[in-house]
Parts: sequence; C-alpha cells; structure tokens
Amino acid sequence: MDVTIAIDAMGGDHGVRVTVPAAVRYLRQHPGDTIILVGLPDVIKAELRTLKSTSEPRLHIFAASEVVGMDESPQLMLRSKKDSSMRVAINLVKKGEASACVSAGNTGALMAIARYVLKMLPGIDRPAIASFLPTNKGQVCMLDLGANVDCNAEHLLQFALMGSALVYAIEHKDNPTVGLLNIGSEDIKGNEVVKQAAKLLRQSDLNFYGNIEGNDIFKGLTDIVVCDGFVGNVALKTTEGLAQMLGGFLREEFKRNALTKLTGLIATPVLNAFRRRVDPRRYNGASLLGLKGIVLKSHGAADELAFYCAIKRAAEEARGGMLHHISEHIEKWHYECQQKAREAS
Amino acid sequence: MDVTIAIDAMGGDHGVRVTVPAAVRYLRQHPGDTIILVGLPDVIKAELRTLKSTSEPRLHIFAASEVVGMDESPQLMLRSKKDSSMRVAINLVKKGEASACVSAGNTGALMAIARYVLKMLPGIDRPAIASFLPTNKGQVCMLDLGANVDCNAEHLLQFALMGSALVYAIEHKDNPTVGLLNIGSEDIKGNEVVKQAAKLLRQSDLNFYGNIEGNDIFKGLTDIVVCDGFVGNVALKTTEGLAQMLGGFLREEFKRNALTKLTGLIATPVLNAFRRRVDPRRYNGASLLGLKGIVLKSHGAADELAFYCAIKRAAEEARGGMLHHISEHIEKWHYECQQKAREAS
Repeated sequence: MDVTIAIDAMGGDHGVRVTVPAAVRYLRQHPGDTIILVGLPDVIKAELRTLKSTSEPRLHIFAASEVVGMDESPQLMLRSKKDSSMRVAINLVKKGEASACVSAGNTGALMAIARYVLKMLPGIDRPAIASFLPTNKGQVCMLDLGANVDCNAEHLLQFALMGSALVYAIEHKDNPTVGLLNIGSEDIKGNEVVKQAAKLLRQSDLNFYGNIEGNDIFKGLTDIVVCDGFVGNVALKTTEGLAQMLGGFLREEFKRNALTKLTGLIATPVLNAFRRRVDPRRYNGASLLGLKGIVLKSHGAADELAFYCAIKRAAEEARGGMLHHISEHIEKWHYECQQKAREAS
Repeated sequence: MDVTIAIDAMGGDHGVRVTVPAAVRYLRQHPGDTIILVGLPDVIKAELRTLKSTSEPRLHIFAASEVVGMDESPQLMLRSKKDSSMRVAINLVKKGEASACVSAGNTGALMAIARYVLKMLPGIDRPAIASFLPTNKGQVCMLDLGANVDCNAEHLLQFALMGSALVYAIEHKDNPTVGLLNIGSEDIKGNEVVKQAAKLLRQSDLNFYGNIEGNDIFKGLTDIVVCDGFVGNVALKTTEGLAQMLGGFLREEFKRNALTKLTGLIATPVLNAFRRRVDPRRYNGASLLGLKGIVLKSHGAADELAFYCAIKRAAEEARGGMLHHISEHIEKWHYECQQKAREAS
C-alpha cells in the first residue's frame, strides 16, 4: 500500500536543511510513497535547488506561513499561529490528504495541536508517547515516555493496548508480549497503580508477560514495556545519559597517549560496527499514540539519517494499519468488560 | 578515628567464601579498624584456615546459629530466626559494640530487621536506600533506590537531608548540591509530589540545585539526586541493563572473526582501563539511611573486591559521623519550620 506523509519541513533545530534531504532520500528508497513538505515554499524550494532535486516525483510543497519556535508555549501556539507548518501538516492528516505526519518541532506544541486538531480515539483517555529501543534480541517498544505524569491503572492498560497495536503494525508480530515495568517481578511488588494495572492486564486479551524490572528492558524479555510517563521519561533519559558517559570514557581511554591512539586507529572498524549497532538515529521517531491520526515526533537535533528513520516509521505505522488495530483492541476490551459485568449481575 | 564493623559473614550468594577474605583484605589495608565476623564459627574458622589467616589481629568471631535465606520472607525472618547472623550483626550496632554493619543478604529482611532492631532516627518517617554511581566528574549519591514506592514531598525532603549528610560524611564536601529528579528542568514540570518537594527543598538549608533530568545524573550536575523509590529503582536497574547490553555488544564485535579477535587482543589494555573506570564493584554498598545505626547492603552476588568496597564505605560513614550530620540537618529543618510558623502567626 502506498502512503502519503506530511512533513513539518520547518521544525527542529535544523529545519529544511535536515527535513528536505531526508524526504528526498526517503522517496528515492520508497518508490510509490508520496511526501508533502509543509512550510515556507521559497525556503523549501531553495533547499531542493541546493540538492539538485527540483523535479523530484511524488514530492509536493504545501504552503504554511508560520513556524513554531522550539521554546514557545503550547497553549499560545494553539491560540495563535494557526498557519504554522506544524499545524498545517497535522491538518493534512485530519483532512485525509496524508496518512501520517512527522515533525521535529517542540513536543509540547505538537502534542497540544495534534490533540486539538485530530481528537482522541474513542476509548482512549490519554495520549501516550511510544518509542523503540534496541535490545539483546532486537527492539522493544516502550511507553509512556513523558506525556502523562500521573496515571491510573486503566491508563496503563490503554498504553498496553496501543503498544500492542503499534508493534503489530510495525513488526507484524501476532500477540506481542507486554511487560509491566515494576521494581520486582513478584505480584506483591510495586505501588497500588501498578498492582491494579497487572490485574487489568491479566483480564485483557493482550499477551501479558507480567512484571519486569528495569534491567529486563534491554534483555528483550518482552516486545512492549508499559509504564507511566514520569518513570518512562526518567528511564529513557537516564539510559541516554549513561550511553553518552560510557561513549565519552571509551573515547578518552583511546586518546590517552600515542600508543592508545594507535590502538584506537586499529580498532576503528570494530568500534564503528559497535556504534552502528546502537546508533540512536536508527531509533529516532516517537509515536504520539491515542489520536485519530498518526503523528511522529522526531528528535529536535535529528540529522538527515535520523529524520529519514522517523519518516520511515510513520509510513510503516500507516501501512500497517495501526489506528485500526488500536480500535480493534479497544473494542475487544470493552466487550470483555461488558461480558464480565453481565456475568456479575 | 578507628571503627569496628560487624559483618554478616553468612549472607549473600557466596557467604564466607567472599565475606571472610574481604574482611581480611580490609583489615590489612586499614590498620586500626576492627572487624567482627558474625555467623557459624566453625565455617568462618575453616575459611580463615584456607586463607592462612587464623591469627589475624583485630578480627573477632561472634557466634550466630542461624542464616537468613536469600528468598525468605522478611516478616517471617522477624518473628523466627532471632539468632541469624544478619540480626546478630545488627544487634552489635544497637548495643554499640560495632559502629556499622554490612550484609550481602536479602534486602527486604535486612531492612525489616534493621528497622525493628535499630528504630528510626527522630524526624525521619521512612528509611531510604542510597548508593553512589560514577559520573563524568566523579560520583553522585542517588536515593531512594527502592525502599519506598509511594512518597510524599516531605519524604523526598528527608531523603535530600539524609543524602546531604551521607555525602558530607563520605566526601567531606560542605554544602553538597541536591538535584530533584524530574522530567524537565522548569518548575511547572512533573507531578504534584515533585512540585511540592521542590518548594520544600527551596525553603530548607540544603544547597538545592533545582530539577534535573535523567540524562543529567551521569553529567555530575549535582552531588545528590533525590527521587522516589519506584523511579530510583527503575532508573538504577535500567542503567545496569543498558551497561550489560553495551558490554555484551562490544565483546561480540571484538569476537566476530580472527581479525577482530586480534584487534581485541591489541586493545585489551585500553578496554581494561575503560572497564576499571566504570567497574560496578567499586560502587558496591547501598546505605540503609534513616535508622539509628549504619547499615550497608552489599550486592548479593558481590565478589571479594565488591564486598571489600562495601566494608570500606561502612567504615567511612561511621568515621565521617553520618548519623550526627543527619540529626543536625533534621534539627535545622524543624527549627526553620518553627520560625516560619511563628512568623505566620
């Protein structure tokens, strides 16, 4: 199935210098798909000229006169700047002219505008941010990564439903396993919300693995890891911090003196192979789930490869029918709840 | 100041095979200090014979007839096994015969018995688990790492008071900085508990840096990182999992073929220097804070070096007068609260 992706061409730290070449790269590798670059036409065209890609097939430009700044307030963005590249790109999804949109702009504004324009899917109370991380066995989908700081058990269940739909759409895995992030594997561990969420997950049609601990995430024990947005955000950023520190220490050790520098030169191919394996750019693109449309948030500092990966993920979600799978899971869950209520009465 | 450390010689995955050689090593490197090995005398003596250390000066054996299993229920341990090596070691601290105790046994049982035997310091509602982690600039003290799954703002303040006292005792740093773990640096970010805790921290005499994010922990932005036990436990275990995965990937890349194996051989000294720098054994020893006594929990799987480091940390806490510093902070805080109440009335 061919899909059309709307791109907020002006968003992110680097704007068109990253979004436009990433779009061109995507189109060349995915014949059939279409991209709509949303933003200031002159700026976009200038970048296309630099890339000698002025007559790219399946590449369209859609004018938007304003740009959302990286530090602007989401509430202000909602009221003003109705012609921002971010909002216009989301509008294209709303109107059915694009199957998904991607932006590297301000997360808060993207979430607020997407929620306002697209509205929530029926049966989902809160949107969630989901992302994939590398594991020993492949990759794991983790959510929520920061959209919700206070969650109840029902929210965590909804995150699990959405995560399962996302993994099914992206990896075509039937019945992906769901782990509930906790501070021990036993049922008695954790706070009340997590204990209650475990009960709901056991009642659902999802493939619930049980509680998992922080160190299990990277073992690839489960396909999906569910947690509240505070815990998920801290865990994700802590791993980013650790990876940066370890990378820095490794570089320092190889640069200590002439001998270690020579060793580093000899080890370059191996170190590069290692780096490629855990390259965070390959995992760029966080899904804003729970909306009536597919919206991907790219890292603000994304380079061309990273932004390309976010476009690819958006296309995969659209092609895999993610929204349909979320609705299916929600319907099944409500049906089971009704059954239980009937049995109980 | 010379200190006496009581050691639960039977605790941990390896019991006397690790605790006894670690104790002997500690005594040889710290003339003046004394160690009391608590457990089954025959088993301890046999290990000392193997080590040819039967006449070690400043090494005493104190008999305890029972052993706490790694999987036994803390509640059961409290009621039964009153002569366990763990409980007897804690009792020696209670009676003032030791300045601190160290155990590699079951965390839940250690916390329950320590709390029952030693009682809480006045002004501290909940015990907390604190540990040091390596950073770009040195080390950071993080707490709570799992003792409390539901915390209010006042608990987080108390953790900050205790963490400050611990860092002062260990590193002799006046006014160490306190960071509050959050999902953004701005005041409006986070859940209600964290927002309220930030207000209390600002009112306290502590050197409050402000909110910090997960990736700031390893930057060494602050000397202390405060969070609730659920978040802290997940963050700590997630970093353990990531470090294991990255280490595994690096090993795999160096073992891919004959050429990469040769490269690995050449790079061994550099890789070893890197490994030493982040060796988790050097950071072994989590402090159970808030009790009327110093109790250190070693990792259950600790080897001799790791257990030695936990003994060293226990001695440093005792020598640094940590309990006194906690009480001082608490008194100051209560005085300030009274002042404020007076001004308000």
